Amino acid sequence: MTKPQFKKIIIFGAGLIGGSFALALRKAGMAGEAVGFGRSSATLEQAKHLGILDRIGTDVAAEVGDADIVLIATPVAQMADIFTRIAPHLGKHTVVTDGGSTKCDVVEAARRRLGAKVAQFVPAHPIAGAEKSGASAAQADLYQGKKVVLTPMPENTAEAVARVREAWEQCGAVVSELTPQQHDEVFAAVSHLPHLLSYALVHDLARRENRDLLLSFAASGFRDFTRIAASSPEMWRDICMANRNALLDELERYMEELGILHEALAEADAGKLEEIFSLARSVRANWSQQ
Amino acid sequence: MTKPQFKKIIIFGAGLIGGSFALALRKAGMAGEAVGFGRSSATLEQAKHLGILDRIGTDVAAEVGDADIVLIATPVAQMADIFTRIAPHLGKHTVVTDGGSTKCDVVEAARRRLGAKVAQFVPAHPIAGAEKSGASAAQADLYQGKKVVLTPMPENTAEAVARVREAWEQCGAVVSELTPQQHDEVFAAVSHLPHLLSYALVHDLARRENRDLLLSFAASGFRDFTRIAASSPEMWRDICMANRNALLDELERYMEELGILHEALAEADAGKLEEIFSLARSVRANWSQQ
Repeated sequence: MTKPQFKKIIIFGAGLIGGSFALALRKAGMAGEAVGFGRSSATLEQAKHLGILDRIGTDVAAEVGDADIVLIATPVAQMADIFTRIAPHLGKHTVVTDGGSTKCDVVEAARRRLGAKVAQFVPAHPIAGAEKSGASAAQADLYQGKKVVLTPMPENTAEAVARVREAWEQCGAVVSELTPQQHDEVFAAVSHLPHLLSYALVHDLARRENRDLLLSFAASGFRDFTRIAASSPEMWRDICMANRNALLDELERYMEELGILHEALAEADAGKLEEIFSLARSVRANWSQQ
Repeated sequence: MTKPQFKKIIIFGAGLIGGSFALALRKAGMAGEAVGFGRSSATLEQAKHLGILDRIGTDVAAEVGDADIVLIATPVAQMADIFTRIAPHLGKHTVVTDGGSTKCDVVEAARRRLGAKVAQFVPAHPIAGAEKSGASAAQADLYQGKKVVLTPMPENTAEAVARVREAWEQCGAVVSELTPQQHDEVFAAVSHLPHLLSYALVHDLARRENRDLLLSFAASGFRDFTRIAASSPEMWRDICMANRNALLDELERYMEELGILHEALAEADAGKLEEIFSLARSVRANWSQQ
């Protein structure tokens, strides 16, 4: 049995996520031609210049029929339109995946826009740092050892899931599977809530008269706690809106947790504070990023 | 005018803070003999072995009379007892400083225990990372370029403040001054609250049945946000208790801030979310640790 090959790959959005996918597949010897589409012709030109793309696509209808794999790596808000554009033209053997940070909303859009061809779409969330963005930040080893979560749907064929898994694995990723619902709940807890909390702290300080004094004494604890508050406001607005229900649940749990801490402080209950801090410390100290 | 010399320095607690102070003054050619006291004879022996201390003190009464400077670098909870032990024996020209993370409680203890000699005590808070601790973590350049906040009291003589400032500056620190009250308010906002919030997030996750699943998908945002949740529970219990009132004020402000975010999410107010995230991002991106 020979390895599946991706002779023609199509990338919507040739930035960090899309560009790195193309470079990684190429480096693994799995990619033939890479064709790019996107809103920004400057990004596409740059991606071509950097060797990420072989060609800039001009006609979606003409390109997707014989593509082996399509990656949609645009902001989630643009994905529904792209599904509509590719749906009538998708070849029988073309598989589609994406790089969105939320999955229930993408799955819902895919079901509405792709119709029966939704079976060919296997949603994915690559967990790769997004401090930098754009084609110039793309790199062949971005996914090396990083997690990619697939959230297959009942409609998917086993073959489509296997081919999309193969593509991400060839990028060097460690692939796991969750349902779309599980995915959104997990990431509300470990990613979306921390971003919200970090933005909230900086915003609270930002509105004060003495903010310059306060910030002049902020040190390494503040630096790390608030690093994610420098993330893209537009991207995080969209993620929070897309995963609103799960995030509201998490925020409410967290506000209850703060209520417990408030009570312990108000009552000068040192034992309770130490109990909370000790459990947290032990769990955090034993955790290591995989 | 010759530089003031510290021919004899006394360190209570020869760990990261105390040990680095002794090493830094020695490296600057400002320290003569370094004598250490502390609860742990193992730490003191190690500090002597590492060249931090020349001698391990056995009799506080006999040692402090001719000391030029005394640094109290123990947990804040032990400082009141040390003030009581040194008070009757402090030489006329001996200055005293400390390394505590809270200041109003230390000032209050100093006033009660040192009596008239409180004029010789100039409180300090060195802002130096405490991920490592113990004598083995001490290093001569720990304070190089780091902030040290002095919180002088009305009782202090200008000469005592100048000598303590000189000692910290010779360690390489950038010295600034706040009142004890200002200090505790500033650090409640930029340090104590973030620690509390980080502990709260990990504690919230730690108590869940699916915590291993959740933590297996946590990535670099979570890693940085929760780094400070691996700090010493005992130390942070004491800091939170010592600065309880200012911290309660900050926690209540933050809970109001979360209330605003909760409302924006519940009402699907994308514009409000973006406004909050954008202000936070711009302030955080323009901040740089000094």
